[in-house]
Amino acid sequence: MIDKLYNGILEGDRSALSQSITLIESHNEDHNKKAIVLLEKLRNHKKESKRLGISGTPGVGKSTFIEKFGNFLIDKGHKVAVLAIDPTSYISGGSILGDKTRMKSLSYRDEAFVRPTPSSKYLGGVAKKTRETIELCEAFGFDYIIVETVGVGQSEVAVSDITDHLMLLMQPASGDELQGIKRGILELANSLVVNKADGDLLTKAKISKAELESSLHILRKEKFPIFLCSALYNEGIEAIYENIESFFKEEKSEIMIKRRNQIIKWAKDELKLELIKRVDKNKKINEKLLKDIDKKEFSLYETIKSLLKDLSI
Amino acid sequence: MIDKLYNGILEGDRSALSQSITLIESHNEDHNKKAIVLLEKLRNHKKESKRLGISGTPGVGKSTFIEKFGNFLIDKGHKVAVLAIDPTSYISGGSILGDKTRMKSLSYRDEAFVRPTPSSKYLGGVAKKTRETIELCEAFGFDYIIVETVGVGQSEVAVSDITDHLMLLMQPASGDELQGIKRGILELANSLVVNKADGDLLTKAKISKAELESSLHILRKEKFPIFLCSALYNEGIEAIYENIESFFKEEKSEIMIKRRNQIIKWAKDELKLELIKRVDKNKKINEKLLKDIDKKEFSLYETIKSLLKDLSI
Repeated sequence: MIDKLYNGILEGDRSALSQSITLIESHNEDHNKKAIVLLEKLRNHKKESKRLGISGTPGVGKSTFIEKFGNFLIDKGHKVAVLAIDPTSYISGGSILGDKTRMKSLSYRDEAFVRPTPSSKYLGGVAKKTRETIELCEAFGFDYIIVETVGVGQSEVAVSDITDHLMLLMQPASGDELQGIKRGILELANSLVVNKADGDLLTKAKISKAELESSLHILRKEKFPIFLCSALYNEGIEAIYENIESFFKEEKSEIMIKRRNQIIKWAKDELKLELIKRVDKNKKINEKLLKDIDKKEFSLYETIKSLLKDLSI
Repeated sequence: MIDKLYNGILEGDRSALSQSITLIESHNEDHNKKAIVLLEKLRNHKKESKRLGISGTPGVGKSTFIEKFGNFLIDKGHKVAVLAIDPTSYISGGSILGDKTRMKSLSYRDEAFVRPTPSSKYLGGVAKKTRETIELCEAFGFDYIIVETVGVGQSEVAVSDITDHLMLLMQPASGDELQGIKRGILELANSLVVNKADGDLLTKAKISKAELESSLHILRKEKFPIFLCSALYNEGIEAIYENIESFFKEEKSEIMIKRRNQIIKWAKDELKLELIKRVDKNKKINEKLLKDIDKKEFSLYETIKSLLKDLSI
């Protein structure tokens, strides 16, 4: 099975890619082990890719933008994978992000692959499974990996942990609304796009851009380009594309450092998840708890202290 | 300082209680250590309390209900603490639940204490700090602890992990909307209240109740009382109160078993949090990662495997 998926991915078989992602996303441990074997086999087949995070609050026009931007990338000769991670799915239990049919004109192209991925439950780790999916997409040959997320604060951090460039999508907003943007999020972002800069909103969009520029000047953030765009009317896409391309040309060493730190964080997250699993499985811990809890002088904190003493970490 | 808080709590000094909760909620490790010392000192002073979880989607009328219900409890001679946990605060970075002023007529009474508590970041552990706060409130002498949360799926689980009785608050809804209620949530709940059963909505409320009863019959859940209530007009509160009181009388042994399991889960959560902290602090792990990552044949999974081999858990 692993060999079939492995060969399929290297031969460009999209259903093999889909099946492999399903394997990665499975909650079955046996599937996950197989997925790791597959990822290890594909390790040396990964192509160089540009990992682009796109975030924005609901209603800002992310789908429309990604559809237009993705088609633009394909017309320029790129192969584009769009992965949508949903930071709220582990709370609501369901995905608020749509399915394939959301970006019809993009997902039907041979050079594109559109897939929502559920988020993992632990560590606020909204992006856990997405990391592995990125690797699969790179082995498959996609050179632009777009990771989309609904911007709710924590999710931008997660996306920034697995991509090279974080683009914030906004809609024209008043000064007061702009004040509400969290400073931490702006510091994570590499570029900002004010979408819906068309029709009645064009003037407001221009004012928003100017206000953002002046407030970002106060934050003293350099290299923070702000663009106007109308995804609906396909306007402003080219300038955004050129900015991304030049980012990847000029920031090579910064990107290398960033990816290195991302891998360290990834490894630590995996370690933490494994330790959490082991606490649940560890029979000695269970026995000790059951024994202590019925003592008359039971102290939760004393029990934890004595359990920790026996663990060599 | 600990002694002052300890004495203050036993003497019924509300500002000592507030300060102690702040200590528990602090992100400063030194504060947390002090909080544990305080909790340990208070361990044998805890009074018997009824821990009641109340959950419902936004707009269902939770604040109004709790205000009226809390006042009713006080009139019956109880002392009532209301703790609000906000499952989304670690995503949005801010609390969506209001502050003290939300339940004015309740929070101004001597027998009541109303306090929102932020949620913890890890383990989907929306209730971590609330557990400790419950213990403080019990030492202070509150005999009804109400833990309120916005119902978003995961949060009901968290509240059910720290309370004895979970009450779901709903508003009159159509059959289709009722279908949307997650089966898992209904299985967690001990009672259900259809609020806003007044005016134009009264008929709809009655139909909702009937539909819920028939669908819960299919789920074969016994002892699952459903009530109509108008918190706004203070109607239906008494029947709800009597149901809670008889629950605590009749389900004594079930409650004991439940609390025992809750403590085991609590201890395991604490262990997990401590292990997560240790992964971040462990110098050997960091060194190993930094060494491996620059290898030409670096494999994330091999590195993790070898790190785990050295950990005795």
